[in-house]
Amino acid sequence: MYRNRTCGELNLSNVNEEVTLAGWVHKIRKMGGITFIDLRDRYGITQLSFNEEVNPDLFEKANKLGREWVIQVTGRVTERSSKNPHLPTGDIEIIVSELNVLNPSDIPPFTIEDETDGGDDVRMKYRYLDLRRNTVRKNLELRHRMALETRRYLDERHFLEVETPALIASTPEGARDFIVPSRMNPGEFYALPQSPQLLKQLLMVAGFDRYFQIVKCFRDEDLRADRQPEFTQIDCEMSFVHRDDILNMFEGLTKHLFKTIKGIELPDFPRMSYADAMKYYGSDKPDIRFDMKLVEIKDLTEGHGFGIFDASEYVGAICVEGCANYTRKQLDELTDFVKRPQIGAKGLIYVRYNEDGTIKSSVDKFYTEDDLKKWLERCQAKPGDLLLLLSGETEKTQKQLSELRLEMGSRLGLRNKFDYQCLWVVDFPLLEKDEELNRFFAKHHPFTSPKPEDIPLLDTNPAAVRANAYDIVINGVEVGGGSIRIHDSQLQKKMFSVLGFTEERAQQQFGFLMNAFRYGAPPHGGIAFGLDRFVSLFAGLDSIRDCIAFPKNNMGRDVMLNAPAPVEQEQLDELGIMLKPKK
Amino acid sequence: MYRNRTCGELNLSNVNEEVTLAGWVHKIRKMGGITFIDLRDRYGITQLSFNEEVNPDLFEKANKLGREWVIQVTGRVTERSSKNPHLPTGDIEIIVSELNVLNPSDIPPFTIEDETDGGDDVRMKYRYLDLRRNTVRKNLELRHRMALETRRYLDERHFLEVETPALIASTPEGARDFIVPSRMNPGEFYALPQSPQLLKQLLMVAGFDRYFQIVKCFRDEDLRADRQPEFTQIDCEMSFVHRDDILNMFEGLTKHLFKTIKGIELPDFPRMSYADAMKYYGSDKPDIRFDMKLVEIKDLTEGHGFGIFDASEYVGAICVEGCANYTRKQLDELTDFVKRPQIGAKGLIYVRYNEDGTIKSSVDKFYTEDDLKKWLERCQAKPGDLLLLLSGETEKTQKQLSELRLEMGSRLGLRNKFDYQCLWVVDFPLLEKDEELNRFFAKHHPFTSPKPEDIPLLDTNPAAVRANAYDIVINGVEVGGGSIRIHDSQLQKKMFSVLGFTEERAQQQFGFLMNAFRYGAPPHGGIAFGLDRFVSLFAGLDSIRDCIAFPKNNMGRDVMLNAPAPVEQEQLDELGIMLKPKK
Repeated sequence: MYRNRTCGELNLSNVNEEVTLAGWVHKIRKMGGITFIDLRDRYGITQLSFNEEVNPDLFEKANKLGREWVIQVTGRVTERSSKNPHLPTGDIEIIVSELNVLNPSDIPPFTIEDETDGGDDVRMKYRYLDLRRNTVRKNLELRHRMALETRRYLDERHFLEVETPALIASTPEGARDFIVPSRMNPGEFYALPQSPQLLKQLLMVAGFDRYFQIVKCFRDEDLRADRQPEFTQIDCEMSFVHRDDILNMFEGLTKHLFKTIKGIELPDFPRMSYADAMKYYGSDKPDIRFDMKLVEIKDLTEGHGFGIFDASEYVGAICVEGCANYTRKQLDELTDFVKRPQIGAKGLIYVRYNEDGTIKSSVDKFYTEDDLKKWLERCQAKPGDLLLLLSGETEKTQKQLSELRLEMGSRLGLRNKFDYQCLWVVDFPLLEKDEELNRFFAKHHPFTSPKPEDIPLLDTNPAAVRANAYDIVINGVEVGGGSIRIHDSQLQKKMFSVLGFTEERAQQQFGFLMNAFRYGAPPHGGIAFGLDRFVSLFAGLDSIRDCIAFPKNNMGRDVMLNAPAPVEQEQLDELGIMLKPKK
Repeated sequence: MYRNRTCGELNLSNVNEEVTLAGWVHKIRKMGGITFIDLRDRYGITQLSFNEEVNPDLFEKANKLGREWVIQVTGRVTERSSKNPHLPTGDIEIIVSELNVLNPSDIPPFTIEDETDGGDDVRMKYRYLDLRRNTVRKNLELRHRMALETRRYLDERHFLEVETPALIASTPEGARDFIVPSRMNPGEFYALPQSPQLLKQLLMVAGFDRYFQIVKCFRDEDLRADRQPEFTQIDCEMSFVHRDDILNMFEGLTKHLFKTIKGIELPDFPRMSYADAMKYYGSDKPDIRFDMKLVEIKDLTEGHGFGIFDASEYVGAICVEGCANYTRKQLDELTDFVKRPQIGAKGLIYVRYNEDGTIKSSVDKFYTEDDLKKWLERCQAKPGDLLLLLSGETEKTQKQLSELRLEMGSRLGLRNKFDYQCLWVVDFPLLEKDEELNRFFAKHHPFTSPKPEDIPLLDTNPAAVRANAYDIVINGVEVGGGSIRIHDSQLQKKMFSVLGFTEERAQQQFGFLMNAFRYGAPPHGGIAFGLDRFVSLFAGLDSIRDCIAFPKNNMGRDVMLNAPAPVEQEQLDELGIMLKPKK
């Protein structure tokens, strides 16, 4: 080793020891006849001291070093005269007796500090320098620990980590696959998995009983800020279980991670039906760090000549505590907020319940104070509160109210990143109708089991069938989701037929699964957590990118590696493919 | 849960408990008025008992079950009258009071037994049934434990597991890449990594200090029996280390795995230079479970008029203990063996050193008994031993002798699968010359550091430069390999120039690495273990396929999933590629 100690471990108990350290020159301070250097490695920072009087040659050599040079030093640990209480090694410094330059450095394009001066693009291009920053590396250390603790927890509960193949077959259902041309089978392609869904179900058929895998998955989607073409899942499946067995097991995993990694003991997670989530939060991933539930008041608004409400399927309100004194300007801001195209409301109605008990509303023309009082009562408003109302088509308006609710939560500081509130959302609809194509799609995927009591509805009212599916939601973020699967080949066949598959197409695409179900498939179900999102939640990050070592930008590019890139003609020839001529 | 106990855990201490089990019908034995069913799950087998007299309905129901049906039973644990000492649960049986069929099964296409009647093809097509076999599942359990213990060991030593991207850029050096067309960047392609080599080096530049990853890698090669297009590596890298730091760390990992998983305490691993490995074993991955070293005797054979030896660059022998009594037929077999095209020798010379002290050789015509005695002496042969000799071009003949040595080791039972002999092979040549192309290639990869003392030879005699590289070899299998890397951008440039790269091409392909080296790269090195091979060695398997859940055949096909497969024209259109018309 080029060192016998790291830069993070020395303290007063080591005084007078001779040590050898290696690392990066973090900072140089020249104070007349003494030069101090902060030497940095992954484990910390240690101050080096060079004294002109004691060793003029070494002093001169030290003064020639630059930021980010890699050096090796030997010296004696000494108590500092002016200590730094913010640094674990702040009580000591090294009086250097030997200095060895291992590698010089050009001046880096941005500062290697928690708060850097580097913009996003330059930091991504020089990601290897960006990763030197403490804040970024900490995220990856956290990721490592979360993965390790996940494995520990699941291993202790007899889960086997089984690697499933990355080169599989493409299924045109769902999101777009990345495909990989096969040289040995010209004209044929592998697909990279969007998830190991079918393979883990086959492992259940194989009697593996409890499976997990922390696994890269791939989706060729147009990227939004918080999506990556490759992402990592904690993918799990269990046999001989009912829904609650799975919820308990993975609530346990979540609690284990919070406890071991963040020292937080979480209470049991509430369970909320999808129907309630939509009704009270307008969202299938409610942020329950704060209350401010949606209240439907359509019945109270009818017949007063206010055409907008009368023509609306739904009128809903949220009660914002203590905001009756919002100014006209603030209310206008909120109106602009809900009118943004991403949200799409037509306007915003308010009712001020002033501290003095008076009531003021933007629809005073249509509603008497008594009318408005009824609204306030249903919303359990107190003097000083503000009601905000939206109206329109039910589901759309609920979603708009949800956005407004989140915005108000943020404005009022009710969404502390490090206050973690976990929730199970259950009983999702099994199917979603595409009105344009006039056919049903699986909301989760075609292997999700209906709730047993809803199976008869598959024939009579498919839209009403609830799935035996669940999501785990933390602070309004969907961290994971799963379902009890169909294990009966007849029910699976029925499901494909409801989804409009011909028998032939179902057989062609999923024949191996339906065949497998003929040989004794056990009842089973599972869940997958998005590791990237889970880590960024723990780290309090706004984007998943910062917990990924080498992320891609929103054009799917790695600007450091310059990938993707053209390949040589010879490679294409060998694969039997050609580029389409550009138009 | 559909059960409160598993099929592997009940014993006499549970007698009289009422339990519920779920699993597969493994065997049915009808003995007149009693039917016994072996119920199987991942954890074991438990005997169920149905008595016609006690419960005729249940008895009838049980008799209708078939092999591999999935059932749930409730009953009382009872001491067996005739115990089965081979089964952990062999002292008890369950007197069933409730039987619930969870899923029937067609008759499986082969028996679910350790020794199955299913051929390779049918087992691969129904891999989910093959995986039900105890022997196959055990391999995957072993794999899980090896990966977990690897993580535990490395985590304790401050290694961070960092996920590197799977969608990177193609580098035409080395083996063929699998490539992935980018829809968002038409005409451009990602490549799947053959290893995370460059990325882990960048993590060292980023100051991560100790990195590992258990990671899928991809190589589009023509497949031999023991290769897969996707394979898994334990990939590791460390900073501020010399070669021996790495050897010690990963010798430690190997010992840790043998100890925790197989209960074997290994002694320190010998270290052998590549030159010695070739000289004494004719192989860069010697099997040192047995001695039988190669002995060069060219000098002793010259000038006796035996043209074949006189014309040979090399004459070498192995001394096979106690085989002087080999028959003519046995010797002919060995001659056929070395003449096989895979080995390619022209013939085989033998010398019998009979028990009675007489000597008999196939070259008696040219060599006197005294001549032959000198050969025997150099080979330290004893009466009763057999010398086998090959001659020709040095390296080629050494390799042939190596094959013969391994064959003799096998014949003599000296290669016990479960006698593990580990070895480091060090000081590999840095470069290999392609005589046809008249250029050098990197034997390991272009980032491997020469031994410091050999650097001057890069200018004068590149072929003689030794690499600071090492392989870990167990029982003649290369389980892992690595090197100290170049961390100096000047030396890296020089290396590319020795390899015949123009500066432009080096910059184009590896610019980001050479740039990174300009910003303070620490000295670093690493290693990668082939997990598939490591596991199959632990399991005593002949092929890595049996430790992979869903392997591909030697056409790169997954016959269960039917991958690869043609994709829809629409997918190709979106990606901007076309199939080349077939000739």
